Amino acid sequence: MRSLRKELWFHVPSRRGFVNITSKVEEAVKESGVMEGLVLVNAMHITASVFINDDEKGLHQDYDAWLEKLAPHEPVSQYRHNVGEDNADAHMKRQIMGREVVIAITGGTLDLGPWEQVFYGEFDGRRKKRALIKIIGE
Amino acid sequence: MRSLRKELWFHVPSRRGFVNITSKVEEAVKESGVMEGLVLVNAMHITASVFINDDEKGLHQDYDAWLEKLAPHEPVSQYRHNVGEDNADAHMKRQIMGREVVIAITGGTLDLGPWEQVFYGEFDGRRKKRALIKIIGE
Amino acid sequence: MRSLRKELWFHVPSRRGFVNITSKVEEAVKESGVMEGLVLVNAMHITASVFINDDEKGLHQDYDAWLEKLAPHEPVSQYRHNVGEDNADAHMKRQIMGREVVIAITGGTLDLGPWEQVFYGEFDGRRKKRALIKIIGE
Repeated sequence: MRSLRKELWFHVPSRRGFVNITSKVEEAVKESGVMEGLVLVNAMHITASVFINDDEKGLHQDYDAWLEKLAPHEPVSQYRHNVGEDNADAHMKRQIMGREVVIAITGGTLDLGPWEQVFYGEFDGRRKKRALIKIIGE
Repeated sequence: MRSLRKELWFHVPSRRGFVNITSKVEEAVKESGVMEGLVLVNAMHITASVFINDDEKGLHQDYDAWLEKLAPHEPVSQYRHNVGEDNADAHMKRQIMGREVVIAITGGTLDLGPWEQVFYGEFDGRRKKRALIKIIGE
Repeated sequence: MRSLRKELWFHVPSRRGFVNITSKVEEAVKESGVMEGLVLVNAMHITASVFINDDEKGLHQDYDAWLEKLAPHEPVSQYRHNVGEDNADAHMKRQIMGREVVIAITGGTLDLGPWEQVFYGEFDGRRKKRALIKIIGE
């Protein structure tokens, strides 16, 4: 069995944002030499997400507005977690979008559907944060 | 290490619907010959879901009504993604229900709890779409 | 390839509650002898969740209030699933929080970010229920 571990670092300049990391995950798969296996990609922070969806700007604006409706940032005082913090909403948004994705590796490449793209979703940015790539297979 | 890759095809005649795929996933596990391992089952489309829950009609109707409340299909004009499209809500519904499940394989069979059943969740149907099964183990 | 299967049992005395299981998952990883691999942790029941987030009481109260807003327990009559049952809301809450997590194993230990903690999330407690740990790797 082969394995590879790699970290991706982000510094999203705004509170919220989506970063397409598909090519970085693909690079890690090539580097691993794994032909058949699985790759796990997860946010290492609990106010961020790794998810798969469309690379379309309008949709990303829709996600942002929708998540704000389901778990509004303000008033920050509505959350008990916000004692010396203001990011309780980010912990909720991330649960809806998910912590991680697991993707099949087939023939040495990411086995994705035609429109599947991998994103890092930031809900409490303006600082350095990480995602983890872990690959196992043969 | 053994591995197996298999696609399941669907053509749900309505916009939304749930299809029980547990027996298809079980068949793939048998076919793989894997006794101990993991199986990933994911939607290959970004307006569909693979999830695990109860095979109970009332619950499926509840899910449908609930997802419509959290991410309504209409008015389609409320979403920026809907320029020449009308499926933005499906991209949201799928995030709540999830893209994928990972299931343990133990003793050559799906290691599920008593009521766990695997479903393909369609949120933008009336066309051919796919899910991916990827098995690794020994 | 090595593998290990283990069940964790819970009896949460109230309808809803969160139990930190990080050290139990870590113990299972040690027991498996796996140095590089993946661990799957999933609820075996469809009204419960395994998720990763912060071990902070205020946040857990926020989660509980937020999930009640998105999928209220009462009136139980609003759900078609609730014929002889009263737990339809629990099936929804669990979809938002997720069924499972997959965690990387690196150097024989859980490869978690600084604040990542693993929880069993109960949404229909007051009875014995289980989660599954499945480890594969080398």
